[in-house]
Amino acid sequence: MPSETGLIDLFARAAGAARDDVVIGIGDDAAVLRPAPGQELVACTDTLVEGVHFAAGVDPVSLGHKALAVNLSDLAAMGADPAWALLSLTLPHADEGWVVGFATGFTDLAARFGVMLVGGDTGRGALSVTVQALGQVPVGMAIGRNGARPGDGLYVTGPLGDAALALRLGRAAAAVPMELRARLDRPEPRIGSGLALRGQAHAAIDLSDGLSTDLARLAAASGVGATIEAGALPASGVFLESGGTEEMQLDGGDDYELLYACPGEPPAGAGAFRVGTVEADPGLRLVRADGTTVPLEPRGYEHFGS
Amino acid sequence: MPSETGLIDLFARAAGAARDDVVIGIGDDAAVLRPAPGQELVACTDTLVEGVHFAAGVDPVSLGHKALAVNLSDLAAMGADPAWALLSLTLPHADEGWVVGFATGFTDLAARFGVMLVGGDTGRGALSVTVQALGQVPVGMAIGRNGARPGDGLYVTGPLGDAALALRLGRAAAAVPMELRARLDRPEPRIGSGLALRGQAHAAIDLSDGLSTDLARLAAASGVGATIEAGALPASGVFLESGGTEEMQLDGGDDYELLYACPGEPPAGAGAFRVGTVEADPGLRLVRADGTTVPLEPRGYEHFGS
Repeated sequence: MPSETGLIDLFARAAGAARDDVVIGIGDDAAVLRPAPGQELVACTDTLVEGVHFAAGVDPVSLGHKALAVNLSDLAAMGADPAWALLSLTLPHADEGWVVGFATGFTDLAARFGVMLVGGDTGRGALSVTVQALGQVPVGMAIGRNGARPGDGLYVTGPLGDAALALRLGRAAAAVPMELRARLDRPEPRIGSGLALRGQAHAAIDLSDGLSTDLARLAAASGVGATIEAGALPASGVFLESGGTEEMQLDGGDDYELLYACPGEPPAGAGAFRVGTVEADPGLRLVRADGTTVPLEPRGYEHFGS
Repeated sequence: MPSETGLIDLFARAAGAARDDVVIGIGDDAAVLRPAPGQELVACTDTLVEGVHFAAGVDPVSLGHKALAVNLSDLAAMGADPAWALLSLTLPHADEGWVVGFATGFTDLAARFGVMLVGGDTGRGALSVTVQALGQVPVGMAIGRNGARPGDGLYVTGPLGDAALALRLGRAAAAVPMELRARLDRPEPRIGSGLALRGQAHAAIDLSDGLSTDLARLAAASGVGATIEAGALPASGVFLESGGTEEMQLDGGDDYELLYACPGEPPAGAGAFRVGTVEADPGLRLVRADGTTVPLEPRGYEHFGS
């Protein structure tokens, strides 16, 4: 078992990107960071718990990647440029190999997006990972959930349902095609899309809990309704070949694409699959392939549903 | 069981202090904050796990207080002025009364120190609380662990050992005097001391894991040694009356006082009980009451000790 000092040294050696706006990094009571002038700070946190958000025995490299990725996805939905992260890792009995794998997954992704790990906490307990990600956005340019306006197009940045299908196949002990597995275990945060959407999108949210649920949140925050076209939902080839369903695309979680509302043509590079339209009429509607319109109920993941 | 939306509403209503530098608070993908010009950002995170950091059945008001307090204590050790916090709460089966109690303890302390809760995450799992605290310090004024110099006096901001004694008595099913219980369950972060020590202390650390262990960390980071005078360790009256020992003062954790190194007289208001001296000679030494000097081994809490 590595000591806490050993864990800290491990992460201090491989902390992701090196950033010269880090005055004090890992190893003190707190990190000291130098925000850029003219920027606002964007801060989020997400926790992954074994047996809830991931299965026991998960590959530690994937877990390290995903724990950071889901947080960077939240920053992407705000149009933020990621900068720094803190990590709280609770482990029951991890061995050094496991921790090295986890650190590799975490810091490789961090380095790719210019993120430096600047602090954290380790302790004993049921396996659980909490990451706090910090990013920056020019003053007034953050993209909230609450700005969608009737007439805006609704777009997603990529195909939906892959992660839900991977989860379903895995639980049924069926073979999981590698591309689907990667979408579940190693989601790619849509940072580039978020940056491109600054000043363009009226509202954005990241799709962590399923399109129907996350759209309901965006619509409620904006005080609008929306209609989704079932036939317009983008799907990957492997999804279509492997038994993916409309329900997985509407209600499956873990997509980590962005859903956004945009008044005109989305900017090049954002990723723009139009899936519907924002409307003044409250509530969510779904136009089926046969042309009938039905209510769209939020049936995605509720963290504390009764 | 409250839904996630219900939990978010609960915390959004009682978020601690109201701050006009919060552009977007609870309820979006991430918070958007406006750092003050000329300030550096100070960021830390600490996790409390049931059965490790606190006992099952703990009073939820105390847990809410302590989860924030231990983080504010880290900010205090840097000389930072606390501003914002994020909360990740993992609950197995909490009822609404429990959550309301937790929120009360958390937000009452937050309000007292001008901290606004701006975001977080909730989920199911073994009871665990992770808080991230963010504060600010004027550029170049943060107090690290690594600046202690030979000849500096070593000071603590208040009496040591109370929390360790409360824990010992509680585990022995003995009566725990209320003042000791409060020191264990509701530690008071030494924010005022940290602010007073800016530009005065060469180095500081918060005493979470026991004086011997935290002093070893400060000395190692500074590349110095130190001698502690056992007879100089400050003790509360109730500690002395209730069977407190030198070992609890040296190795007990959860004091949440600051230990700092200061070249001259400490500033008024910092809290200044001199306990020893920084020396060039590496290693830690303890001068016992009988005048003999012995090595001082770090025997405090190691989060991942083998």
